Amino acid sequence: MTLSTLNVAVVGLGRLGQRHAENLAQRVPGANLVAVCSPVEKELEWARNTLGVQQCYADYAALLARPEVQAVFLVTPTSLHAQQIIAALKAGKHVFCEKPLSLNLEDCLLVEQEAARHPHLKVMIGFVRRFDASYRDAARKIREGLIGKPYLIRSQTMDQNDPDGFFVRFSASSGGIFLDCSVHDVDLARWLLGNPKPRRVFATGTNAIHAALDEFKDVDNGIATLEFSDGSMATFMASRTMAHGHETLTETFGTQGRLTVGAGANLNRVEIADRHGIRHECTPDFFSRFADAFLLEAREFVDAALGRGELSLSLNDATEATRIGLAMTQAMRERRVVDFD
Amino acid sequence: MTLSTLNVAVVGLGRLGQRHAENLAQRVPGANLVAVCSPVEKELEWARNTLGVQQCYADYAALLARPEVQAVFLVTPTSLHAQQIIAALKAGKHVFCEKPLSLNLEDCLLVEQEAARHPHLKVMIGFVRRFDASYRDAARKIREGLIGKPYLIRSQTMDQNDPDGFFVRFSASSGGIFLDCSVHDVDLARWLLGNPKPRRVFATGTNAIHAALDEFKDVDNGIATLEFSDGSMATFMASRTMAHGHETLTETFGTQGRLTVGAGANLNRVEIADRHGIRHECTPDFFSRFADAFLLEAREFVDAALGRGELSLSLNDATEATRIGLAMTQAMRERRVVDFD
Amino acid sequence: MTLSTLNVAVVGLGRLGQRHAENLAQRVPGANLVAVCSPVEKELEWARNTLGVQQCYADYAALLARPEVQAVFLVTPTSLHAQQIIAALKAGKHVFCEKPLSLNLEDCLLVEQEAARHPHLKVMIGFVRRFDASYRDAARKIREGLIGKPYLIRSQTMDQNDPDGFFVRFSASSGGIFLDCSVHDVDLARWLLGNPKPRRVFATGTNAIHAALDEFKDVDNGIATLEFSDGSMATFMASRTMAHGHETLTETFGTQGRLTVGAGANLNRVEIADRHGIRHECTPDFFSRFADAFLLEAREFVDAALGRGELSLSLNDATEATRIGLAMTQAMRERRVVDFD
Amino acid sequence: MTLSTLNVAVVGLGRLGQRHAENLAQRVPGANLVAVCSPVEKELEWARNTLGVQQCYADYAALLARPEVQAVFLVTPTSLHAQQIIAALKAGKHVFCEKPLSLNLEDCLLVEQEAARHPHLKVMIGFVRRFDASYRDAARKIREGLIGKPYLIRSQTMDQNDPDGFFVRFSASSGGIFLDCSVHDVDLARWLLGNPKPRRVFATGTNAIHAALDEFKDVDNGIATLEFSDGSMATFMASRTMAHGHETLTETFGTQGRLTVGAGANLNRVEIADRHGIRHECTPDFFSRFADAFLLEAREFVDAALGRGELSLSLNDATEATRIGLAMTQAMRERRVVDFD
Repeated sequence: MTLSTLNVAVVGLGRLGQRHAENLAQRVPGANLVAVCSPVEKELEWARNTLGVQQCYADYAALLARPEVQAVFLVTPTSLHAQQIIAALKAGKHVFCEKPLSLNLEDCLLVEQEAARHPHLKVMIGFVRRFDASYRDAARKIREGLIGKPYLIRSQTMDQNDPDGFFVRFSASSGGIFLDCSVHDVDLARWLLGNPKPRRVFATGTNAIHAALDEFKDVDNGIATLEFSDGSMATFMASRTMAHGHETLTETFGTQGRLTVGAGANLNRVEIADRHGIRHECTPDFFSRFADAFLLEAREFVDAALGRGELSLSLNDATEATRIGLAMTQAMRERRVVDFD
Repeated sequence: MTLSTLNVAVVGLGRLGQRHAENLAQRVPGANLVAVCSPVEKELEWARNTLGVQQCYADYAALLARPEVQAVFLVTPTSLHAQQIIAALKAGKHVFCEKPLSLNLEDCLLVEQEAARHPHLKVMIGFVRRFDASYRDAARKIREGLIGKPYLIRSQTMDQNDPDGFFVRFSASSGGIFLDCSVHDVDLARWLLGNPKPRRVFATGTNAIHAALDEFKDVDNGIATLEFSDGSMATFMASRTMAHGHETLTETFGTQGRLTVGAGANLNRVEIADRHGIRHECTPDFFSRFADAFLLEAREFVDAALGRGELSLSLNDATEATRIGLAMTQAMRERRVVDFD
Repeated sequence: MTLSTLNVAVVGLGRLGQRHAENLAQRVPGANLVAVCSPVEKELEWARNTLGVQQCYADYAALLARPEVQAVFLVTPTSLHAQQIIAALKAGKHVFCEKPLSLNLEDCLLVEQEAARHPHLKVMIGFVRRFDASYRDAARKIREGLIGKPYLIRSQTMDQNDPDGFFVRFSASSGGIFLDCSVHDVDLARWLLGNPKPRRVFATGTNAIHAALDEFKDVDNGIATLEFSDGSMATFMASRTMAHGHETLTETFGTQGRLTVGAGANLNRVEIADRHGIRHECTPDFFSRFADAFLLEAREFVDAALGRGELSLSLNDATEATRIGLAMTQAMRERRVVDFD
Repeated sequence: MTLSTLNVAVVGLGRLGQRHAENLAQRVPGANLVAVCSPVEKELEWARNTLGVQQCYADYAALLARPEVQAVFLVTPTSLHAQQIIAALKAGKHVFCEKPLSLNLEDCLLVEQEAARHPHLKVMIGFVRRFDASYRDAARKIREGLIGKPYLIRSQTMDQNDPDGFFVRFSASSGGIFLDCSVHDVDLARWLLGNPKPRRVFATGTNAIHAALDEFKDVDNGIATLEFSDGSMATFMASRTMAHGHETLTETFGTQGRLTVGAGANLNRVEIADRHGIRHECTPDFFSRFADAFLLEAREFVDAALGRGELSLSLNDATEATRIGLAMTQAMRERRVVDFD
């Protein structure tokens, strides 16, 4: 018996791109990492030496021209996502692309249209938290009715403070804290509440440490409240300034109970009792928090491309997350309530 | 040596009034519970039989006429607070009054004015959480700089669902969820952030279970976000529909750390490991959560009235809590952002 | 109506004696602290000035001679317990005495005999943990069958390290770590398992920090395992060398679940998230851990003496705790299994 | 560039054997699963169909005869371990073997002798917990001095009750609870304390649910206390009768702090708040608890066999664990203290 395999290329080999490449090379049954693409020669070398990848491209078009490449993993700047997805679809490749789909709603819709022309190709935007074992367990419990009818999500993404403030320089291209961080929480809220329509959003924020964000109309701590048209609600917090680590936490309130995912942000199962009291260390970043989820996400994509399963989220989910993220950003900048007509 | 004592009367003998009466009769050094007042004969009997109180009044004015009564504890409907406080001050009594001071800003200011005419009399509004050992510890740690500069409060008051919906009928006189519940969180936020001025507030809410609240323009789950003029913020949640118990939780985010008070709402130190997993039971109501704080609150008041200490909160704190609570309520009802002057 | 009261005297005014005196003076309904006794003039002064106690004795016999004293609280060195209890009973007083009853089994039995001659007098040994709300809740849950049939207790008493090693000098008179600390755990084990008969015990220990204990054949960390004749078991740990605080923890294993009391040793409800991770502070000593229990214990005793309730533990319980504690100590010193007849 | 690979065969395809086979086939860089061996045809079919393994043997000798097989993973009954390891070494294969090495000390020593004759071959006994991220973190922290000098280990292995009592029938061949379960804890204690020599051990136990174990002189709940010759100690608990799940917990007490691994046995990061209180679900079995560790263990073995790293534990570690496990078993059966020579 021969098991079927999918020839995959990873495009973009920054920290997260390398993570995807390693997973595809070593831990995703059926995936065959045949090529990589990066403008940085050193990154290509890494792939060659560490993972034994033979085909290394600096040029995306050259990669797409290779017929044996069946799927691409786009781990590139957000501003490139839409055009790169469309090009890959036109070249007949399945596409996995990191979130967010785009900072621009029109581009999201263009991608949706292109994808609709290639129904046999799989397109997946990497809302990685949906693949985390704990979020999956929570979603299943909600579906099974454990907490009655869910009516409120409270979700937060808190990053450990980076004294160098890398994200400040990155603010313009990331779209700001709501599109960069909260877009995950927005996606979770839609998923866990059953995809209600957004109605109105209010947002605000402050710069507690990184005043340089003012210039980008961005904040290092943001709060948003979202009303859905079915009466359910969501409230979001995002922060760049935590001292203890990266903490992603989502609460789903239902009429018969509440599910919380991520409280404590425990790094592992070690507890320390010493003169500081009793404590645990926390996940320093989303890499350590979602390591397993990145793997499961890649597996679902590969399985779907190989016809062994379905994708559990759609391109439109990504469009909706961008739509809401944009409205949150506008509400925060204009200090007002924004309606979704 | 004879220790000085304060002759106290409790006015209003509902569940919370009885709690105060017991504390004053048995556990507050220097307090001498000499009289009670209630329109309910059965409650007076309880005080006579259980606590040995000799003077039992149905009429508040008659109580105030007794010269030996030096202080009153008002545990009466909010609508009576302002006039009862003013009457007591005019009669020369120290006054402890349950929160909120009033649902009406003008009345708050009238009370402040009357109190200013009696500088020798102590007036205290019962923001009981300030007397909880954990909140006190958090406030002290913040003052000492443990978490750097505090810039954001997240505070929530979640009540266990009462299937009978007592609070529905009570909605009109309580002022709604924000004035009834969140007023505590508002007071905490001001306290922990160092009394910044409120600038703008947004609020919304939904009725997850108790649709009958619609008629009172009230909600069983409310969310509010408050901006202060110094750039700090607070976000509040209040709920009437928790399955697990009463959970009061306050997080203070600072530039170097975060303090959380009340996570888990543990009833006690017992942990159960059985087929449900590992769990603890939760405080069913604010009585069980704040039992000790009610006692410490009474002690501070009695000590202050006896000249043995100062009050740690002012009448104006109560006025400000009402001011913000009213704005939150208006924001929720009119579905908009409300600016403070 | 006049409520009945009990005239009480506190004998021994060290730290714990002062705690009892304050409770009896201010927080125990029906108790009337009329006298104190201490060889230390400064301690008598404290009682006079702080609590307003009028009768202050240096001589225990003089105190017992006062007819208005109806009950004594003995908070004295263990070596004095037996004779002081017997003298008080002969003088017609109710007796509360701190644990352990005695380091000597014969004295325990003599006290039991004397008490049997005064059935109208209450005698209570202060196994304070039985009065802790969490232990009470656990005991009730076990009685109600929540965890099926209990078959194993794991109980530990861990003290925060005292760099001065006060307990080293105290070792000879305290009877060593098992009689000083574990006697509480032994009492809990008997209580929670339904008073089974002890069969065999093994114990050992080590000096991790305080090597000076060697000279007293004592250890700063001890472990003991006790078999009961009904097949149930208990295992104990005691330590003088914790860095994080005082931690009393008891697990009861039953055929359908486990109850744990005291995990985490939380000082309060504050959680700190900072560069150390997420942590809570711990109770520094048994005073802070069992403050409320000392009060409830005194209330039960006073109520029983006033005929308003029954004692929930017997003198024989104290005798049995000493019997087992002595066997543990012998097992540790002789490095062997000790059989109970 | 070609990365080097190791041709591996898995022997024994029960539940744990299948887990190893999947890891080797899909997730261990450098491993090439070329063959399997099992007396059960259905299990061979599983390997053929699910993992695409071509060489499937019922006969171990036939497998060893294949020159391309470079390493074997023995996931077979303990009674076969010693002879199978020796045969594999004689056939020139690297060997990974599940714990315990043997129930028989002589066999352990024979294996050590044979291994010494093949210094170029790697032999590893699967003490999987050493590869768990949390245990590794704890070991590192101890090595770095975070808790001062470690002097006491408390370690427990608690299995969820299997109402069918599979382990009862298995008791004779497993060697009983101490050799089957506690051998892991013994290995951890030696590792975390720096390999001290055992001096004396006491053990006891009871059958709380599975009385049928009496016939095998086995218990469903066991306790053991081990003294080391350097004054350090370890105390162990093992249980077959937990209601809440599989709980492996290890505490290391040091002169400046304590590290706990595994408290809470959390299944994942989901917390449920409902009418039962606040709870989390627990790992049902060691598979779910140590899934990642099984993978890291296989990676270390494969890397070592490929010359890319060293093994972090030795054959003698396994011999010592058996030696101590046997003494614990004897102590429990003969109800006495057992001395090590």
